[in-house]
Amino acid sequence: MKQPFPFSAIVGQEDMKRAMVLTAIDPSIGGVLVFGDRGTGKSTAVRALAGLLPPISVVRSCPVNSAHPEDCPDWARITDPETHEIPTPVVDLPLGASEDRVTGALDIEKALTQGEKAFQPGLLAQANRGYLYIDEVNLLEDHIVDLLLDVAQSGVNVVEREGLSIRHDARFVLVGSGNPEEGELRPQLLDRFGLSVDVTSPTDIDERVEVIKRRDDYENRHSSFMLRWQAEDAALRDLIIKARQTLKELKTPDAALRTVAELCVKLGSDGLRGELTLLKAARAYAAFRDDTVLTTGHIRSTAALALRHRLRRDPLDEAGSGARVARVVAETLGV
Amino acid sequence: MKQPFPFSAIVGQEDMKRAMVLTAIDPSIGGVLVFGDRGTGKSTAVRALAGLLPPISVVRSCPVNSAHPEDCPDWARITDPETHEIPTPVVDLPLGASEDRVTGALDIEKALTQGEKAFQPGLLAQANRGYLYIDEVNLLEDHIVDLLLDVAQSGVNVVEREGLSIRHDARFVLVGSGNPEEGELRPQLLDRFGLSVDVTSPTDIDERVEVIKRRDDYENRHSSFMLRWQAEDAALRDLIIKARQTLKELKTPDAALRTVAELCVKLGSDGLRGELTLLKAARAYAAFRDDTVLTTGHIRSTAALALRHRLRRDPLDEAGSGARVARVVAETLGV
Amino acid sequence: MKQPFPFSAIVGQEDMKRAMVLTAIDPSIGGVLVFGDRGTGKSTAVRALAGLLPPISVVRSCPVNSAHPEDCPDWARITDPETHEIPTPVVDLPLGASEDRVTGALDIEKALTQGEKAFQPGLLAQANRGYLYIDEVNLLEDHIVDLLLDVAQSGVNVVEREGLSIRHDARFVLVGSGNPEEGELRPQLLDRFGLSVDVTSPTDIDERVEVIKRRDDYENRHSSFMLRWQAEDAALRDLIIKARQTLKELKTPDAALRTVAELCVKLGSDGLRGELTLLKAARAYAAFRDDTVLTTGHIRSTAALALRHRLRRDPLDEAGSGARVARVVAETLGV
Amino acid sequence: MKQPFPFSAIVGQEDMKRAMVLTAIDPSIGGVLVFGDRGTGKSTAVRALAGLLPPISVVRSCPVNSAHPEDCPDWARITDPETHEIPTPVVDLPLGASEDRVTGALDIEKALTQGEKAFQPGLLAQANRGYLYIDEVNLLEDHIVDLLLDVAQSGVNVVEREGLSIRHDARFVLVGSGNPEEGELRPQLLDRFGLSVDVTSPTDIDERVEVIKRRDDYENRHSSFMLRWQAEDAALRDLIIKARQTLKELKTPDAALRTVAELCVKLGSDGLRGELTLLKAARAYAAFRDDTVLTTGHIRSTAALALRHRLRRDPLDEAGSGARVARVVAETLGV
Amino acid sequence: MKQPFPFSAIVGQEDMKRAMVLTAIDPSIGGVLVFGDRGTGKSTAVRALAGLLPPISVVRSCPVNSAHPEDCPDWARITDPETHEIPTPVVDLPLGASEDRVTGALDIEKALTQGEKAFQPGLLAQANRGYLYIDEVNLLEDHIVDLLLDVAQSGVNVVEREGLSIRHDARFVLVGSGNPEEGELRPQLLDRFGLSVDVTSPTDIDERVEVIKRRDDYENRHSSFMLRWQAEDAALRDLIIKARQTLKELKTPDAALRTVAELCVKLGSDGLRGELTLLKAARAYAAFRDDTVLTTGHIRSTAALALRHRLRRDPLDEAGSGARVARVVAETLGV
Amino acid sequence: MKQPFPFSAIVGQEDMKRAMVLTAIDPSIGGVLVFGDRGTGKSTAVRALAGLLPPISVVRSCPVNSAHPEDCPDWARITDPETHEIPTPVVDLPLGASEDRVTGALDIEKALTQGEKAFQPGLLAQANRGYLYIDEVNLLEDHIVDLLLDVAQSGVNVVEREGLSIRHDARFVLVGSGNPEEGELRPQLLDRFGLSVDVTSPTDIDERVEVIKRRDDYENRHSSFMLRWQAEDAALRDLIIKARQTLKELKTPDAALRTVAELCVKLGSDGLRGELTLLKAARAYAAFRDDTVLTTGHIRSTAALALRHRLRRDPLDEAGSGARVARVVAETLGV
Repeated sequence: MKQPFPFSAIVGQEDMKRAMVLTAIDPSIGGVLVFGDRGTGKSTAVRALAGLLPPISVVRSCPVNSAHPEDCPDWARITDPETHEIPTPVVDLPLGASEDRVTGALDIEKALTQGEKAFQPGLLAQANRGYLYIDEVNLLEDHIVDLLLDVAQSGVNVVEREGLSIRHDARFVLVGSGNPEEGELRPQLLDRFGLSVDVTSPTDIDERVEVIKRRDDYENRHSSFMLRWQAEDAALRDLIIKARQTLKELKTPDAALRTVAELCVKLGSDGLRGELTLLKAARAYAAFRDDTVLTTGHIRSTAALALRHRLRRDPLDEAGSGARVARVVAETLGV
Repeated sequence: MKQPFPFSAIVGQEDMKRAMVLTAIDPSIGGVLVFGDRGTGKSTAVRALAGLLPPISVVRSCPVNSAHPEDCPDWARITDPETHEIPTPVVDLPLGASEDRVTGALDIEKALTQGEKAFQPGLLAQANRGYLYIDEVNLLEDHIVDLLLDVAQSGVNVVEREGLSIRHDARFVLVGSGNPEEGELRPQLLDRFGLSVDVTSPTDIDERVEVIKRRDDYENRHSSFMLRWQAEDAALRDLIIKARQTLKELKTPDAALRTVAELCVKLGSDGLRGELTLLKAARAYAAFRDDTVLTTGHIRSTAALALRHRLRRDPLDEAGSGARVARVVAETLGV
Repeated sequence: MKQPFPFSAIVGQEDMKRAMVLTAIDPSIGGVLVFGDRGTGKSTAVRALAGLLPPISVVRSCPVNSAHPEDCPDWARITDPETHEIPTPVVDLPLGASEDRVTGALDIEKALTQGEKAFQPGLLAQANRGYLYIDEVNLLEDHIVDLLLDVAQSGVNVVEREGLSIRHDARFVLVGSGNPEEGELRPQLLDRFGLSVDVTSPTDIDERVEVIKRRDDYENRHSSFMLRWQAEDAALRDLIIKARQTLKELKTPDAALRTVAELCVKLGSDGLRGELTLLKAARAYAAFRDDTVLTTGHIRSTAALALRHRLRRDPLDEAGSGARVARVVAETLGV
Repeated sequence: MKQPFPFSAIVGQEDMKRAMVLTAIDPSIGGVLVFGDRGTGKSTAVRALAGLLPPISVVRSCPVNSAHPEDCPDWARITDPETHEIPTPVVDLPLGASEDRVTGALDIEKALTQGEKAFQPGLLAQANRGYLYIDEVNLLEDHIVDLLLDVAQSGVNVVEREGLSIRHDARFVLVGSGNPEEGELRPQLLDRFGLSVDVTSPTDIDERVEVIKRRDDYENRHSSFMLRWQAEDAALRDLIIKARQTLKELKTPDAALRTVAELCVKLGSDGLRGELTLLKAARAYAAFRDDTVLTTGHIRSTAALALRHRLRRDPLDEAGSGARVARVVAETLGV
Repeated sequence: MKQPFPFSAIVGQEDMKRAMVLTAIDPSIGGVLVFGDRGTGKSTAVRALAGLLPPISVVRSCPVNSAHPEDCPDWARITDPETHEIPTPVVDLPLGASEDRVTGALDIEKALTQGEKAFQPGLLAQANRGYLYIDEVNLLEDHIVDLLLDVAQSGVNVVEREGLSIRHDARFVLVGSGNPEEGELRPQLLDRFGLSVDVTSPTDIDERVEVIKRRDDYENRHSSFMLRWQAEDAALRDLIIKARQTLKELKTPDAALRTVAELCVKLGSDGLRGELTLLKAARAYAAFRDDTVLTTGHIRSTAALALRHRLRRDPLDEAGSGARVARVVAETLGV
Repeated sequence: MKQPFPFSAIVGQEDMKRAMVLTAIDPSIGGVLVFGDRGTGKSTAVRALAGLLPPISVVRSCPVNSAHPEDCPDWARITDPETHEIPTPVVDLPLGASEDRVTGALDIEKALTQGEKAFQPGLLAQANRGYLYIDEVNLLEDHIVDLLLDVAQSGVNVVEREGLSIRHDARFVLVGSGNPEEGELRPQLLDRFGLSVDVTSPTDIDERVEVIKRRDDYENRHSSFMLRWQAEDAALRDLIIKARQTLKELKTPDAALRTVAELCVKLGSDGLRGELTLLKAARAYAAFRDDTVLTTGHIRSTAALALRHRLRRDPLDEAGSGARVARVVAETLGV
């Protein structure tokens, strides 16, 4: 199978790329929701992400990719504690995947042939310590979305069905793409995603020609094209690995916490999830910039990503929610 | 798995905390319904409650956590009457749990392999003598909500299906969280919850900063944070245990009964469940305050918790139902 | 399990209590429909009724509680004709009971293990010669309500499914509680209930205090409370047993029949079920009063119970149907 | 089980009784549709009919009640050609009967135990040469009604399911009761019923008293009441048997055919089923009257029964369809 | 079972009879859709058609009635190439026939007992080389209608289900009856039927009397009636057989093709199916008339049958579509 | 079975024929959506295409038609690497095909008889390296359409169900026909089709007569007709094979890329899929014309095919989307 399009070769779409890099630095930021029309390269970007991410070390036979045998679930019966490196998993939720296949289910084959209730892990197990991608999240049935967000947030998959009572780690970053024209997501679901970005087609002719050229090169001059851009991907990957270390040492002044809280109160974002996410995103960004102290600048650069989808709709404010965040950021932090 | 956030470390949200403490003192008050937007810490609070509650003594192999072998159901075949202490159960109703798993059902495995109709207990059995938590109760199917409330009130789970005719104790406090924006509950369902509280995000910057700090400490400086707050939780737990004793001796003057009835008549709350619940809540509160006689003050402090969700909607009264309760309390009991 | 609240200890609610006593005297009056808000004690009353009713003599192994072996169904294979006394059955239709469980069905276990088509009796068999209680009858699916009313009226349960062709006695009084706010019953269903009553919360403070006190005593001073009121229940039970005898001898003057017919014509009640039910209810009441001749007074006292739910809705008549019955009774029988 | 109420003891309801008698004389008239409110004795009348009808002679083991072994279906494997008399079957379609049970289906038991595809006859087989009664035909699912009418008209039950391809005689008169308030029947369905009648409660006090008295006698003085009325039923049964003979000899002048056609054209009844049914009904009535030639009087007496339900709705004609038939009959035949 | 009513004895309804005769001459004309109210003899006509059609020669054990062993499907395993004559099949689609039974399906019996995937042919196989009749085509589920029309047009039944991948000849004329009052057919479905006719009740008294008389004779003087009309049916059958030969030699001048195309363009009928069908119908009619060259007269006589149901609805043209065809025919071909 | 109608013998419909030829030259252009009324020959054209396409070389036992053993899926267990030539597959999605049959599924037979989880390939496997045709794509259920487009674009069929986790190549051109009158496709689905064409019935009499004549010849003078046109098909096939080679060498000046991008920006087509598809279509057209450099002329000739279905609806622009493309092409490229 062809290698995915290189992440670094994506033209423009800076917001989307930044959001994905931030979650690669700190997965606890939570999922990313990518809004935009069909054909703007959303799927390409997610598949590209898979090539960018650093590998992880996992116990060889662990069904949930755990780093240590003691983190593997009981029911997995790990006999060999040896570990090896695998690419960060990026699991694709295929259209029409059943709830069974998502959460895992009773292994019918074993049940019938050996009369034994064994658990067959699902996509949530595969996605542990990685990414789970849902194309067109607004077309998914509500109960599956609920289930995914619930697991994404708690980091644990609980299966209570068919006489099974199973739980296992399922920590992953959920990436969903959606099209606002195909029906909106409930505010409750929006709020569960950590970051959100809008993507649009470029309107600049040069940029569009560049996009076409790169796609054309990717399809028709594949090897040379990949060689050139994989070097750029490797450099970006190194930055991410470094930032994970920097993040641990990062200082967070109380004034920064205050700034974050003020922004959220002024924007009237529901609940406190906005503050917590913005704080994490700003820190990850600071670490990416290799800074040692969280500053207003970091907050400014990530506020829209973290808050835009948490605003109440304001029918009197014609500007989009992105613009409202920008205005309040300017008022609060200066321009 | 990480320990839950300490109950005492929750910033603000006094109503919610009080309601939960009262049901810990007297579970017969009935369930608690927590209204509020996403992100206001409803789930955190319920999970925190699990760490606060006193342990209970149960027969070791009893599927419904009974204190004495004779209270265990017939079908359980208890051979060993020995008891041990376990944490008060707080059972989480996972999204998508089937009715079978909630009520228990025929044990298919035994039926197929041994040709025997055995009962496999469900979540209602697990929750006996503890708490059952439903996140987003307004998203649950009506027939499951009905079933839960019915069992919660009668304290007995009756299963009449697949040729089974089973009943077992299922006394638990139902805690439901809901979001008024996602559709209302039927008045009949509302009335079945003992207490209700509204939770909102704090608008005070200092309070919000405090919330963020504590979450940050909880995530990044876990051990020291837990150590500090578990001591506070232990103190609160002792108060609850003491209050349970005090409650037995508490005196209830006839005048207090009259006051309770007058309040309910003036508020026009349907039925008599309002009086009974307010009486119990006020008594539990008195016991918590270590008082020996029920007074107007105790009633005043718990009236809104017990009555707010039992008022008929009054389209001419713009004030919320909480305000209406407060006004009638002020008129009746003085300010 | 706790004993039910004593019937005699119910404060007020005279109509409901009277309707229940009349059906205890003459079950052929048909079901009772209890309208009212949640929390007015409807369920409590029905469960209390179970403690009031006289015991019945049944063949020991008969699945339908028959008094004589020859009344037991063929498929039951009664080998031992011995009888014993059991409490009058009051069967509770649990929420979510399947049609199978209600009517009985093929015994799957026997079918699979012994290749034999055996019938497993359902709740309708259990309820024979007793009461069947449905809480919130307006929430039940239409086809189950139809089925129940059909059986209640014919006294026979016919099961034509899965290759079974079974019939057995199923004579019971159907008691349904409903809430007019949760959607109305079809006039056809209303008409099938013999009597109907409205219950409301008392608005008198003293009465409400009395209700609370009794509930409080029932919960916290259980033994002494039960002792006191069970004596009252026993006295009432004796009256019922006596009335059953008196009823057999009761004289019904032609003038009384005329009065009954006139009332129904004036009220414009559909069909003739109104007359027949009113006649039976009035007779049962006369027997309860230990009178030997049916009089206008007996009719007056039971007219509303038997007719109120059979009136056509009259959009120009603001008064409730109870008031309309009362007015026509006054016009026809004098005040 | 109690004997049904005697047909002759029904007070009033002449139209309904006449329609039933006519179909007893000539079953090819087709079904009877009885419209009316609940409580007007529709079900009582149909069950009473069962006691009135003459017995039929059937092959002993024939599943479809055939008179001669050669009329029994192939799959029935009749070994004993002996016949005996049974009451005319009146089969009751119970609420919730499945399509399987109605049409017959694969005998699962035989299929599983003997690996043989055998047919298990259904209610349509039982009803052959008799009556099939459906209470509340407007509550039945459309596909079942269609199926019943189709079989009723063709006289053959065709089962093409589960690998079966079975056909057997199913000649019966369909009697349906319906309530116009509960939704109308499609004109296509109406047209398939041969006759229709409206029943209403009597408004005359004496008549109502008489109804109550007879019901009261039936319930409380059962034996003497049955004795008296069964003699009347027997006399009516003799008239029916005699009329069946008379019918074979009855002369039908061409002028009568013309009259029938004129009536239908003037009334604008759809299709030609109206003429054919009216002709049959008038003939059966003539035979019942023991007349030898069909006259205008016979047509006049049966026109409303046969035509009323075949008129197009005329929004400008306030009079009911019964009145329209009467008017056109008067115009056409003189008063 | 009674013989069907003779085709020739049908009074009037010339259009319907002509359409059926034309498809008997050239089945590739496609199906016939008969519109009309209930009671106009639609079903009678189709069943009568069965008696009229010439017999066909088929391989004895071929499940799809093929004339030669090599035309039988592979899976049928024909061992005996012998042929015999059978009546042209007229298969009736019974109400409630499942898709399985229509298309054929996995033979469950063989699958279970012999572990073999065998195909059990359905009604489409039975109907090969004959007629398939659907009463009330507008009541059929859309997916069944789609399936039937698809097979009717392609002449092949393709079954891709349950692991089967079967195809067999299924060439038949689809005859559907419908009632325009019960909801319209989608234009796409209409277009798939070759011919359409409207049937209405006659309004002429003499004609109606004649109809009644013939039905009466058919029912009560069956043998003599059948004898008389079967001779007429035989004569018509000979004409059809002769016309099939004539058709092969028929000349079609280019001018006739032009006329056909002009008619369709003027009428604005969608697509080209109109032309093709009209051409075939006109040719069949010419052959029936024993003419050797297609003329304008033949086109005139069949234009309405072939085109009426293909017109777009014209809200400004009050005349029915039949009248519009007649007008355009008159304008184009002269009167 | 009859050979399909020859592609070259299709009268007119140049757009549709061009679109199909282009995808035969470069299948990566993506699917073709054919809009038009019933009867315009859409199905005929697709079936004709099957006869036109060059054969492909495939591994003999490969379930997905791969050219080399190493391209066959793992689960296929290819033992014999020999290849042979087969016609380019054109798979027809039959009405009512289940999702199982489309994607492939667990082989139930093997599962039951051998206790083995084997994969049974579906229509998507059959269609690999060929065409998949869906008649009336707007009648298909959304989830099947989504699934097909998803696979068509990714070229991989992923099956995650029933414990299977299978993937195999599924590169095919999707051809869908639709009728705009039967409900529109979602813009997202439209965008996934590479090209779109409108087909209408010709209004020119001569053209229509020609159509009828050819159909008539095809049906009645089959052999001579096929002989004549198959030669034309062969010539066209040779052109396609040649163009596939030319395409590899084709030069694409930067100016052409710019032109393509400008057109798309001016038309406001969503996303970048428009540019990429137009580029490919124009190149394929250039290769078909045997040109060596991509020019404005090639772009002009294919712009409508590639872009028309990607425009946003403009309520103020009455002209159809085809006309809008033409206008912008004229403005941008000159006339």
